[in-house]
Amino acid sequence: MPEGNDAKKKLEGLGQDIVSDIRAGKNPTFVTLARKRSNIIFDQKTGYLKLGRAKEERDFVNVAQSKRFMQTVAIAAKCHKFVKENLHTTIRGLFYQLKYSLGEDVDENIFNEQAESNPLIEDLEVALSLTREQLNLNANRKGVLAGNLKIIDTFGNERIQIDCSKQGRSGWAIPSDVDNDIEFVDLKAKYAIVVEKDALWQRLNEDGFWKKENAILITPQGQAARGTRRLIRKLADMGLPIYVFTDSDAWGWYIYWTIKTGSINLAHIGENVATPEARFIGVTMSDLDRYDFLNKLTMNASDVDLKRAQEMLRYDWIKKSREWVTELERMIKLKKKLEQDALQGPRLTFVDDYIKEKIRNKEYLP
Amino acid sequence: MPEGNDAKKKLEGLGQDIVSDIRAGKNPTFVTLARKRSNIIFDQKTGYLKLGRAKEERDFVNVAQSKRFMQTVAIAAKCHKFVKENLHTTIRGLFYQLKYSLGEDVDENIFNEQAESNPLIEDLEVALSLTREQLNLNANRKGVLAGNLKIIDTFGNERIQIDCSKQGRSGWAIPSDVDNDIEFVDLKAKYAIVVEKDALWQRLNEDGFWKKENAILITPQGQAARGTRRLIRKLADMGLPIYVFTDSDAWGWYIYWTIKTGSINLAHIGENVATPEARFIGVTMSDLDRYDFLNKLTMNASDVDLKRAQEMLRYDWIKKSREWVTELERMIKLKKKLEQDALQGPRLTFVDDYIKEKIRNKEYLP
Repeated sequence: MPEGNDAKKKLEGLGQDIVSDIRAGKNPTFVTLARKRSNIIFDQKTGYLKLGRAKEERDFVNVAQSKRFMQTVAIAAKCHKFVKENLHTTIRGLFYQLKYSLGEDVDENIFNEQAESNPLIEDLEVALSLTREQLNLNANRKGVLAGNLKIIDTFGNERIQIDCSKQGRSGWAIPSDVDNDIEFVDLKAKYAIVVEKDALWQRLNEDGFWKKENAILITPQGQAARGTRRLIRKLADMGLPIYVFTDSDAWGWYIYWTIKTGSINLAHIGENVATPEARFIGVTMSDLDRYDFLNKLTMNASDVDLKRAQEMLRYDWIKKSREWVTELERMIKLKKKLEQDALQGPRLTFVDDYIKEKIRNKEYLP
Repeated sequence: MPEGNDAKKKLEGLGQDIVSDIRAGKNPTFVTLARKRSNIIFDQKTGYLKLGRAKEERDFVNVAQSKRFMQTVAIAAKCHKFVKENLHTTIRGLFYQLKYSLGEDVDENIFNEQAESNPLIEDLEVALSLTREQLNLNANRKGVLAGNLKIIDTFGNERIQIDCSKQGRSGWAIPSDVDNDIEFVDLKAKYAIVVEKDALWQRLNEDGFWKKENAILITPQGQAARGTRRLIRKLADMGLPIYVFTDSDAWGWYIYWTIKTGSINLAHIGENVATPEARFIGVTMSDLDRYDFLNKLTMNASDVDLKRAQEMLRYDWIKKSREWVTELERMIKLKKKLEQDALQGPRLTFVDDYIKEKIRNKEYLP
């Protein structure tokens, strides 16, 4: 997977195929996997969302498709340029380049809205088995890491070493692309813990949790961005158990399941961003039995929380898990939720002990 | 201002005063500045939002105030504990501690909602001339920095040096508190440029903009968090000119004016977070004259953009600026806006030249 960048070669191959087709008097086409809902599959065996086998052909000599075909070729040409220049931008930057350069020769604006160009970028990713990052298109980034791990970031003609154990209160900001021109070395940790909220990450970082536990401490700062999801996958590939710690509510579960199973939007790169091995350590409704004080610190579950819990109970992979069914049913019954922050109730450092105990006792949900 | 931490002494002073009052048979009170709208003033001379002189007394033997008084004392006691322990949390963590410990002795929950505790924290900040950070309460953090600047972060019993010129693609993540146990050394830069969008920051960082220009390159990643605003103020205090670069729309202007003049929410620490010296380099509507290609790359202004432009035209400090009046009137007439990203239209590195030229030619708005 996306180590190294063969994007240039693949993009040139696409161009050559089109030229050959035209020269041979054939109708140029290219084939991509369908990304409609019906072709997005939860793979029971591997445990993540991926694309099925349904294909779609983009056909130049087809009135309904020729604009789309031409737009895709324009995107491919721009990305080829970015890769050759060794410069990165975003899908917004790409959109403006397309608007700019096509506007020069053609009267009509070929792209009016970014919503038009985004799906075509995915077409290209899928057709050529490339990721957006290999096309030099950065995604939004978010997320921070601390722990015994070094980063070798080859960036701007420099080879920079960043020691993630020497980032103080800040942590290392996880970039959009954690595959190309970047290496992870000297990993010395027993596990990685992913903490939903930055506030709790800061709490744990201040306590030196990752030092004492020899862990990699990550926060996605809410829903995990693409780069953070990919990084978690890579840490799992490097042999680390992955534990996830979120609020016990709809949003927290969503964050967990996205890390674990991937998402519909990224089903075309499911394998690269999903971490089915991840385990959920809390906060759980069953913590109410073990930690009596939490009963005073519940919050009212919102309608969204309750609706989401009910939806989750209908999922096949949830139905198989007695623990998750118990969790969700309990929330629905109590109409209460629990926040990570509540673990600071008795003392600020309580959250450290909570996580340690959960991991030591292997008390986590699948 | 908030270098060093005299919070412990001030909190103890507050407690001692209350005890003395009670012993002397007096009604314990304390005085804070009113934070209602009518006491928030835009100071024409200094150029930032601050509190006026209207005072409010919190009175223990007053039925309407005694609960609030007691709550404030409980907050003071908790913060005193945090400062003594040398541990930090958030206002959410504090809320849960209050909910936890008061619940032990008292049947009724003394805080049901965080909305109750937040204004009392501000009461305390204002009454004692302390910042939330000095009370060991972290705020949300956001924002990233690169440039020739080193950070000495005394954190978790270690003194860590972070070189902001060696952070690769990531940059140094700006923390919530940039005053306590943190030093800024070896600043070698001619100016600081604050770029609204992380995507553009990444673009400029990749080009080595800050190296070539000897600048400090900051992105608040949208609206500037408290820590980033404070950091910008500190860089101005260290003698750097501050330039701000945002979209030409309502949100971009709001980001600029918040950095420059502070905000209503933080009027009680206006002096610490506002940077009236900041200048706006763009994107401007007048860029449409200088850079012809931008005319193809405008977006439709939203109703919010237009309404905001009209509002701004009514502000005294805008009325005084011919340049801003021209800007805003032009947007209202054209009903168009411009994004930073559009500057990538002709080539990805165009944005570098744009900023350089603006600064060289001193083409910025007040």
